[in-house]
Amino acid sequence: MDNRIPLMQSMQAKRSCLCVGLDVEFDALPAEVLGAEDPIFEFNRRIIDATLPFSIAYKLNTAFYECHGSAGWEALEKTVRYIGSSALSIADAKRGDIGNTAKAYAQTFFKQIQADAVTVSPYMGGDSLLPFLDYSSKWTIALGLTSNPGAEDIQMLALTEGKCVFEKTMELLSSLSGPEQLMFVVGATRPAELKKLKQKFPEYFFLIPGVGAQGGSLNEVLDAMGPNPKAIINASRSIIYAGKGSNFAEMAGHAAQQMQMEMEGYFQNS
Amino acid sequence: MDNRIPLMQSMQAKRSCLCVGLDVEFDALPAEVLGAEDPIFEFNRRIIDATLPFSIAYKLNTAFYECHGSAGWEALEKTVRYIGSSALSIADAKRGDIGNTAKAYAQTFFKQIQADAVTVSPYMGGDSLLPFLDYSSKWTIALGLTSNPGAEDIQMLALTEGKCVFEKTMELLSSLSGPEQLMFVVGATRPAELKKLKQKFPEYFFLIPGVGAQGGSLNEVLDAMGPNPKAIINASRSIIYAGKGSNFAEMAGHAAQQMQMEMEGYFQNS
Repeated sequence: MDNRIPLMQSMQAKRSCLCVGLDVEFDALPAEVLGAEDPIFEFNRRIIDATLPFSIAYKLNTAFYECHGSAGWEALEKTVRYIGSSALSIADAKRGDIGNTAKAYAQTFFKQIQADAVTVSPYMGGDSLLPFLDYSSKWTIALGLTSNPGAEDIQMLALTEGKCVFEKTMELLSSLSGPEQLMFVVGATRPAELKKLKQKFPEYFFLIPGVGAQGGSLNEVLDAMGPNPKAIINASRSIIYAGKGSNFAEMAGHAAQQMQMEMEGYFQNS
Repeated sequence: MDNRIPLMQSMQAKRSCLCVGLDVEFDALPAEVLGAEDPIFEFNRRIIDATLPFSIAYKLNTAFYECHGSAGWEALEKTVRYIGSSALSIADAKRGDIGNTAKAYAQTFFKQIQADAVTVSPYMGGDSLLPFLDYSSKWTIALGLTSNPGAEDIQMLALTEGKCVFEKTMELLSSLSGPEQLMFVVGATRPAELKKLKQKFPEYFFLIPGVGAQGGSLNEVLDAMGPNPKAIINASRSIIYAGKGSNFAEMAGHAAQQMQMEMEGYFQNS
């Protein structure tokens, strides 16, 4: 099974590689949803309804749900169920542990939460990814080169063998799994590196954060990734907080549409 | 404030550096607790009561709680509250993210769960640790050199500057925080490296997993760490599953006492 096939079909149909990041901070919720039984889920539901025509994926960073305890965890679960098969649901969890522990995390996100994809952090090595890769119909998305300044601290260190840590990490992980179920996180803030990595790993999808608030340019990213981009480009705040009033969902829809319109030229008829 | 002072007092009083890992797998619970309203919490409560005279810390790996959804999250919270100030509570979460996200994780574990310590994964760099270090009365415990075979994949790669990735990582992190609130995870399975790291970072506490099931030797670890060891040595399955019958807690207490007795000779009167 090649998980890329339904993903590419959905991208062709919408001519979009947009992922909406549902990184919901309680203090930023519009008054409109505060009266709901579960305000975070209500906010997500309305954002999803408004952006779904333009977006092929939703990314939920677990931090923003965990910080509300078991109620937050429920909002996360409900949101993933609501997305269902209408788009790719990504649990941005950046987990990384070994053996039985990694197995329990894989079970958490793939069976309990029922997400389509989960992000993992590779510091502990290849054995920390294997229990995720056991779920061949799900996506495992490993950190490669991240978008933050701290990426220089470890990921960009030079190894004696003539590569950087992130390149070696991606090579190692690509030896564990093909591109049909493994993706890499590569930040939008270093387009030159992105271009090189695209050449090195042409068959792998990249999940690309860092456009907008963090300074990455959407056009530079799209140019680096080429036609029919194997890219899932994430935007969070610029979409979900595009409006603060009672029309917040409509405004989010407009913001998503704007990004989709910048993307559609990169899709060729298949 | 130096978080080492109360920790060292507790260690001196119990002549112990034992941490009990509450990595509870539902299938392994004794029949005795299955009738309780919250079987995982009931199991933890009885293990804590039985092992507290010999143990200075409890480590809860979040994977084993998250995989039960919001109910698991509640068991985690209740267990940390039950430990209260009677021992150090460590949320073994290995989180690693940036900016607002890292802030939300720090809030999750330090304010919402109220743990004394949280483990973090350093792949994303120094900026991913700062929001945790903002809580100066709490411990941030960063992965250094882990106990699994996969540690060789990334952590042990040689850098052009003549160090391994894990050494450079620990140097970098030690430049961000002193030993009064930052610890390192260093596995028990590589005692020669442990000894070198102890010499290099003599004032930092190490959280040491990998004794027992993973093959690390308690005596080798204690010898490497020297008198009045600045070490928190974790054991999970060998203690919590020491007995499977109705006397499971008593058996766990015995197993903890056995380890404490191997440790006590390393404590000198202060």
